[in-house]
Amino acid sequence: MDWGAEAERRLTEIAACSEATEGVTRLPFTPEHAAANDLIRAWMEQAGLAVHLDAAGTLVGRKAGPEGTPTLLMGSHQDSVRNGGRYDGIMGVALACLAVERLSADRAALPFGIEVLAFADEEGVRFPTALMGPRALAGTLDPGVFDLTDREGIRLGAALDAFGGDADAALTLARDPRRTLGFLEVHIEQGPVLEDDNLALGVVTGICGIERNRVRFAGETGHAGTVPMQGRRDALVAASRFVAAVHDAACDQSDLRATVGTLDLHPDVVNAIPDRAELTLEIRAPEDTDRTGFAARARAEGSRIAAASGVSFEMDRTYAQPAVPCSAPLRKALAKAAAARVGRACLLSSGATHDTSAMADLCPVAMLFLRCREGASHSPREFARAEDMGLAVEVLAEALRGLPARPV
Amino acid sequence: MDWGAEAERRLTEIAACSEATEGVTRLPFTPEHAAANDLIRAWMEQAGLAVHLDAAGTLVGRKAGPEGTPTLLMGSHQDSVRNGGRYDGIMGVALACLAVERLSADRAALPFGIEVLAFADEEGVRFPTALMGPRALAGTLDPGVFDLTDREGIRLGAALDAFGGDADAALTLARDPRRTLGFLEVHIEQGPVLEDDNLALGVVTGICGIERNRVRFAGETGHAGTVPMQGRRDALVAASRFVAAVHDAACDQSDLRATVGTLDLHPDVVNAIPDRAELTLEIRAPEDTDRTGFAARARAEGSRIAAASGVSFEMDRTYAQPAVPCSAPLRKALAKAAAARVGRACLLSSGATHDTSAMADLCPVAMLFLRCREGASHSPREFARAEDMGLAVEVLAEALRGLPARPV
Repeated sequence: MDWGAEAERRLTEIAACSEATEGVTRLPFTPEHAAANDLIRAWMEQAGLAVHLDAAGTLVGRKAGPEGTPTLLMGSHQDSVRNGGRYDGIMGVALACLAVERLSADRAALPFGIEVLAFADEEGVRFPTALMGPRALAGTLDPGVFDLTDREGIRLGAALDAFGGDADAALTLARDPRRTLGFLEVHIEQGPVLEDDNLALGVVTGICGIERNRVRFAGETGHAGTVPMQGRRDALVAASRFVAAVHDAACDQSDLRATVGTLDLHPDVVNAIPDRAELTLEIRAPEDTDRTGFAARARAEGSRIAAASGVSFEMDRTYAQPAVPCSAPLRKALAKAAAARVGRACLLSSGATHDTSAMADLCPVAMLFLRCREGASHSPREFARAEDMGLAVEVLAEALRGLPARPV
Repeated sequence: MDWGAEAERRLTEIAACSEATEGVTRLPFTPEHAAANDLIRAWMEQAGLAVHLDAAGTLVGRKAGPEGTPTLLMGSHQDSVRNGGRYDGIMGVALACLAVERLSADRAALPFGIEVLAFADEEGVRFPTALMGPRALAGTLDPGVFDLTDREGIRLGAALDAFGGDADAALTLARDPRRTLGFLEVHIEQGPVLEDDNLALGVVTGICGIERNRVRFAGETGHAGTVPMQGRRDALVAASRFVAAVHDAACDQSDLRATVGTLDLHPDVVNAIPDRAELTLEIRAPEDTDRTGFAARARAEGSRIAAASGVSFEMDRTYAQPAVPCSAPLRKALAKAAAARVGRACLLSSGATHDTSAMADLCPVAMLFLRCREGASHSPREFARAEDMGLAVEVLAEALRGLPARPV
């Protein structure tokens, strides 16, 4: 079997389960989701897995291990952003199924149970929440999410129930950590590191912590013609110095990302000095102390710039999510299998959140990243090579063979 | 007569001709405009002027000179921005009336005719045009403006006709330059220069030329977590370096102003690298060559920053208005009268456009600026002292006495 070609065939087929024809648009608990689950069910069954939809809307394919042994979980999410690509999420489901099929083809008997999970919603596009499936398994699901509504006013709880799930029962899905070996997720990198390194696969060291800050500079407006340059207290000029300074500082620090993605001005007219500039500063780093240390330096720099510019400065953290380190034994199993196949295991952190982030509350986790073209993601331009997917199937199967039967 | 106290009394009374109670909101061809014109008519008549509304909606108060002599024009606009102040525009009408009254009180006989003009619309708030009154007198009125509509869909031509004007006849109002001595306008400075200099009055050397440029930086978007800092082509980072560089360069150049008043990002979300930043750069200078030279340097700097940042750069001039120099003899008459009253005549350029800008197409022009508190303008905070207004009345009357009967 050419596992890469088969993966490509399956991803092409399931990409048609989409609202739109430009790229893939597959939101949770929709007819497109149901059609996709029909295909995923067939993939799971072909791998010898017994399939059911759990109460949180996750399609679960299970093959029990020897009596009393724990279970290793694998998988990713079925949903996409609007006009997204063919690989983000769903590739992790497809390759996990093929890895189990690969082991079956070898008649390999593992000393633990296996489950492949196709989570309903990781992107959070339809409802203002995400990661319900893994959170249900980890016992961290907030019952309040069922009252959130989509843009048509449909409650998440009602959409889940109509799809065959059960909002009440979803709160009872928490797995026993002692009976859970770990969670492995394969995903496209969504960045340029592997491509630049000319490597098909990378082993993730951890998922970056994230914080978002609201930053406000406030000065004084005035007529663009009548106020001399020297007396100005221009909020945008101060904000601009801050944006450049934060960018330069982040470039000097390895494995940290700092992004100003939004910036709003007041009064925002061509012939008035801006008296307010409000921006968002997002910081991501694999080490939480690196992230908080960088935020402190950004705050000091903002204060310094504001004082020199005669404007005021505020910086408030509006969101924070700690880093998730990957399990050393699971990483080692993936790295060993990858090194055997591709000569060298690239180690990299994940800047993005994944289902793995929520699964880390339940059990040891690890991720395998696949090279994707030009780092493109969340776009119809998303592309991963069939041969790289074939390698990932081999590495995942090989890693499973190398795992012990007890929790790692 | 305490001319300053009388000016303050009149401006307080006419401030009530306003749509809103917070500050002054008086748009052209509205009931508030009509109520204001009733008061202005009384001011003009008290100064011995014969009053009529011209076809362009300008209230004109006229006192003929000796047979065959030309006319000196004075005045400003009656309208305000929304929630504007009590001085911008209307003070120039009130002080011109009081200066004529002052001369009458002295039984001074001038060797030329005098007109005080209260223009309908200088701010351009109701219709997307302005300066119709002075343009009609200068013969530069574009007949296309009558088809412009306000936010209720009312045509400017219809609003003018209903107010007692006549759109067709407005195109025939052009004055004979040979019969026009000049135009004098008194206005609050709308900036901090006089206040900082501790001077009540300033004589304007000229009105700055203005240009507006649309500036676009275009790079590449990407996930704020997955794209390393080094490979980024962040349009906002480049735009920020440009904003700071332009500001610093303008600070180094005397009597030039450069303002980035608007900045828009795409995709404008917290967790994506901006791939487009579009901003406006407005440049004002009393010398057109200074302005165009600065624009060329900004363009070069933008190109340099863009090349260093891996993004593209475009800068297109969307609007340009040449500088208007003030008439040397009229300036001298104002400066001499001001020096006699306040010891020293401050010379300064006007960064803002005024009715004077359009009148310059007809005749020699000059302006007298009044100190205003904290440079505030277009705001309810706008304030000028009664004693400064009293000085302006004296200086204006004194300057009129010093003018010759022939065009200057």
